[in-house]
Amino acid sequence: MRIYLDCIGCFVRQALDSARLATDDEQIHEKVVREVLSLAADLDMSQSPPVIGQQIHRLIRELIGNSDPYRELKQRFNRLALRLCAELEERVRASEDPLETAVRLAIAGNIIDLGVKTSIKESDIEKIIRDCLTADFDGQQIEGFRNAVSRAGKILYLADNAGEIVFDRLLIEQLPCEKVTVVVKGRPVINDATMEDAEFAGLTKLVEVIDNGSDAPGTILESCSEAFRGRFAEADLIIAKGQGNYETLSDANKNIFFILKVKCPVIARDLDCEVGEMILGRNEAFRDTVDLVEEAE
Amino acid sequence: MRIYLDCIGCFVRQALDSARLATDDEQIHEKVVREVLSLAADLDMSQSPPVIGQQIHRLIRELIGNSDPYRELKQRFNRLALRLCAELEERVRASEDPLETAVRLAIAGNIIDLGVKTSIKESDIEKIIRDCLTADFDGQQIEGFRNAVSRAGKILYLADNAGEIVFDRLLIEQLPCEKVTVVVKGRPVINDATMEDAEFAGLTKLVEVIDNGSDAPGTILESCSEAFRGRFAEADLIIAKGQGNYETLSDANKNIFFILKVKCPVIARDLDCEVGEMILGRNEAFRDTVDLVEEAE
Repeated sequence: MRIYLDCIGCFVRQALDSARLATDDEQIHEKVVREVLSLAADLDMSQSPPVIGQQIHRLIRELIGNSDPYRELKQRFNRLALRLCAELEERVRASEDPLETAVRLAIAGNIIDLGVKTSIKESDIEKIIRDCLTADFDGQQIEGFRNAVSRAGKILYLADNAGEIVFDRLLIEQLPCEKVTVVVKGRPVINDATMEDAEFAGLTKLVEVIDNGSDAPGTILESCSEAFRGRFAEADLIIAKGQGNYETLSDANKNIFFILKVKCPVIARDLDCEVGEMILGRNEAFRDTVDLVEEAE
Repeated sequence: MRIYLDCIGCFVRQALDSARLATDDEQIHEKVVREVLSLAADLDMSQSPPVIGQQIHRLIRELIGNSDPYRELKQRFNRLALRLCAELEERVRASEDPLETAVRLAIAGNIIDLGVKTSIKESDIEKIIRDCLTADFDGQQIEGFRNAVSRAGKILYLADNAGEIVFDRLLIEQLPCEKVTVVVKGRPVINDATMEDAEFAGLTKLVEVIDNGSDAPGTILESCSEAFRGRFAEADLIIAKGQGNYETLSDANKNIFFILKVKCPVIARDLDCEVGEMILGRNEAFRDTVDLVEEAE
């Protein structure tokens, strides 16, 4: 997805919010805003929004001299998610369709997104979980997803944020774990999950976890390591979590299922849906694929 | 009030909204956004926000080659307001305290503000009027206002937007009309009221109406005509409508009552109130003034 003009005011606001979250130094807040303005004035609008996010967050880290300013916040979200998930694991197990319940919870976890909104209350998260368990959801998509998972040989699960990654575990537990590799970011960027978060979430004991070598808040292939790009090319099913991965991979010619909660009107327009909707959606290029699962499988 | 860092993302969004409202040409939308970004990157933050608004709207008018791109929209709001006001006039007359009811309606009219939000539905306006008639409102301020009006010799009423100016008439009818001069903008800027709107609202038959010689969406004295500045200096009571007038005059050393509906979090913080509140508030410099009205008056 390319950058829309509507994104630009939002970049400025998000940069300010993130700078404020990282430091109380108002001079740095102003510097960040001014730099983002200069950056945006000469912007190549054919890029995806996370290209700018990557530059903004590099700038913030550099200006405050801290390579991981949101580390404590990420740990707080991880602990909160772990506390909530104890009960939810049981809920998945007891449900009529554990895969669907786990997908719903993985979407609920996607609300923990500092890139969009810096203040999230614990009570909000609990409410969102309840809503996601009961909201309307497209059954056909679930069947398509179930079949694609069954047929796939190599599945890459692109994680999104800390905290959220604990919810992802509930879904990954429903997948054929021996085929799944989880991917986290190579270096810290906002509250995106890194290896430390995958370990905390218990994923490293469950599946292979690799990092993508990049500090972009999405999956910009040119910014990722060669090793990751090889794995991406090889995979026959990609599960991509969150808005950043949607923005960077929506035009990729791969078999991708996007799992996210839509939090911005531009993405909603791109997906032809409403803000707030729960999305389990297949990549444009593979949308009409029907995964016929053979009897023998 | 100076520009806050929070204003900057908002300038970009407002500029885009205004450009879209004025033309469907996407190249102009992009040009406007890029120019606003350059403007903002070197911004003198000690200015008031309407200084930027003035530049943005000059740019939009220049790029689309139309000196009054919102004229039709202003006329539509004027007609809507006139239709609503027929019944409201009666309501003011029949009310226990006509001055207070008229102030409430003048605040309700302040919702017609394209500078803040480009889409306002007719049903929204009707709901806001009902809410404004019953919402909590500080009685002390009304008494202070009533006394200040009684004591004043020369009252300047700084109008804000088209449509809104029809609601202002209801309040002006409650003032000693021979002392009141209404001020409109010297040239079109967004949907701010000009002489044409004052005429439509029936104000020119009721009181003296002058223009301030400026195209700023507020009252930037340096941008106004010398004639207006003289009248401003001479007046012993200023009634200033809307956010733009608050932003430009909140630090002025004059006896000013601001009348507005708070529509942005930065102004809410500056006024120490909540977004959505109805404000009838005196200028800081005169806040502790008690206007003793003598028996004889």
